Amino acid sequence: MGSSLPTIRFLQQPTSSAWLEQALANLDIVLLDHSHCERKAAGVALNLMFRYPSSAKLVRSLTAIAQEELQHFEQVNQILERRGIPLAPLVPPPYGATLNQQIRRDEPARMLDALLVSGLIEARSHERLGLLSEHCPDRELAKFYRSLMASEARHYGAYWTLADTYYERSALVERLETLAQAESEILSTLHPHPRIHS
Amino acid sequence: MGSSLPTIRFLQQPTSSAWLEQALANLDIVLLDHSHCERKAAGVALNLMFRYPSSAKLVRSLTAIAQEELQHFEQVNQILERRGIPLAPLVPPPYGATLNQQIRRDEPARMLDALLVSGLIEARSHERLGLLSEHCPDRELAKFYRSLMASEARHYGAYWTLADTYYERSALVERLETLAQAESEILSTLHPHPRIHS
Repeated sequence: MGSSLPTIRFLQQPTSSAWLEQALANLDIVLLDHSHCERKAAGVALNLMFRYPSSAKLVRSLTAIAQEELQHFEQVNQILERRGIPLAPLVPPPYGATLNQQIRRDEPARMLDALLVSGLIEARSHERLGLLSEHCPDRELAKFYRSLMASEARHYGAYWTLADTYYERSALVERLETLAQAESEILSTLHPHPRIHS
Repeated sequence: MGSSLPTIRFLQQPTSSAWLEQALANLDIVLLDHSHCERKAAGVALNLMFRYPSSAKLVRSLTAIAQEELQHFEQVNQILERRGIPLAPLVPPPYGATLNQQIRRDEPARMLDALLVSGLIEARSHERLGLLSEHCPDRELAKFYRSLMASEARHYGAYWTLADTYYERSALVERLETLAQAESEILSTLHPHPRIHS
């Protein structure tokens, strides 16, 4: 990895080689999990729009993000179909739920945390899809993962920009550091089931 | 109305002229409510995908529907912005909640009812946007409403096709009639606040 990947701002710790090995040994399951991740990402964007319907800039950005996530969801599902991998539920890794526990319950902290957590998840997805695009021996998949990277990067940039629009920069930076530490901490132990965020 | 509008299958009773008068006298509020309707429709499609993640045909159809609803949501929001109408929450009319109460709680009835209720809502939206496209004196709005009609029709067709894919035709037709009666009954009293589904 390294030099050919863009630096992933936000993330405190890079993904371990153990994750990459696990993922490369389970490409079908990771692809199915990826489908769930795209649908969940669209759902998160939509839920934020439901919660903050008067914040025009947030609504505009998240509409675009949700549309792209659905487009990717459709693309992943087409690949699954071509490969004869049936759509099926998958037990999610603890990553999302544990990160969501970090979101404070009262406003205005709640919206700030929700935006930063989404930004972190997008940043991690960007990093991991980048690893897959570089190391995956299956050329169709490698190419597909590479094709998603620009929009994943745009998404975490968009979540950061929204946080920066509605909150003081200094509060933002401090909170991001705390959340980014928590995010890296969750991933420091490899989850036994192969997932995008195991 | 009448001859120039396509027949709206599914609906038991046509919209009253009282609704049209109310809507034409409150175009700004109806437009804002329309924005909420598009976002909610995308949310409903996404929630169904979350609930039935293994039903490939359902997932494929609803992904396309959710994408189109988000596109319309974005279009409505652009018109709101150009007209200086701020995004704001609106108390919804009882229509959606009352219809949702008709959805039986146990499978397989639950999925059938959810698909038919969504189809009915799309059919009613199609009918009402058609009325607005024909009677709205504001030409930009009339043109916009007309531009949405084809996809609203596609959406209710898609919900019907999904129900027809997963259920026996006879059970389907009988249940649709019951739900369609409930739907028309809800709208038989005009809700005092102007809404797409008042």
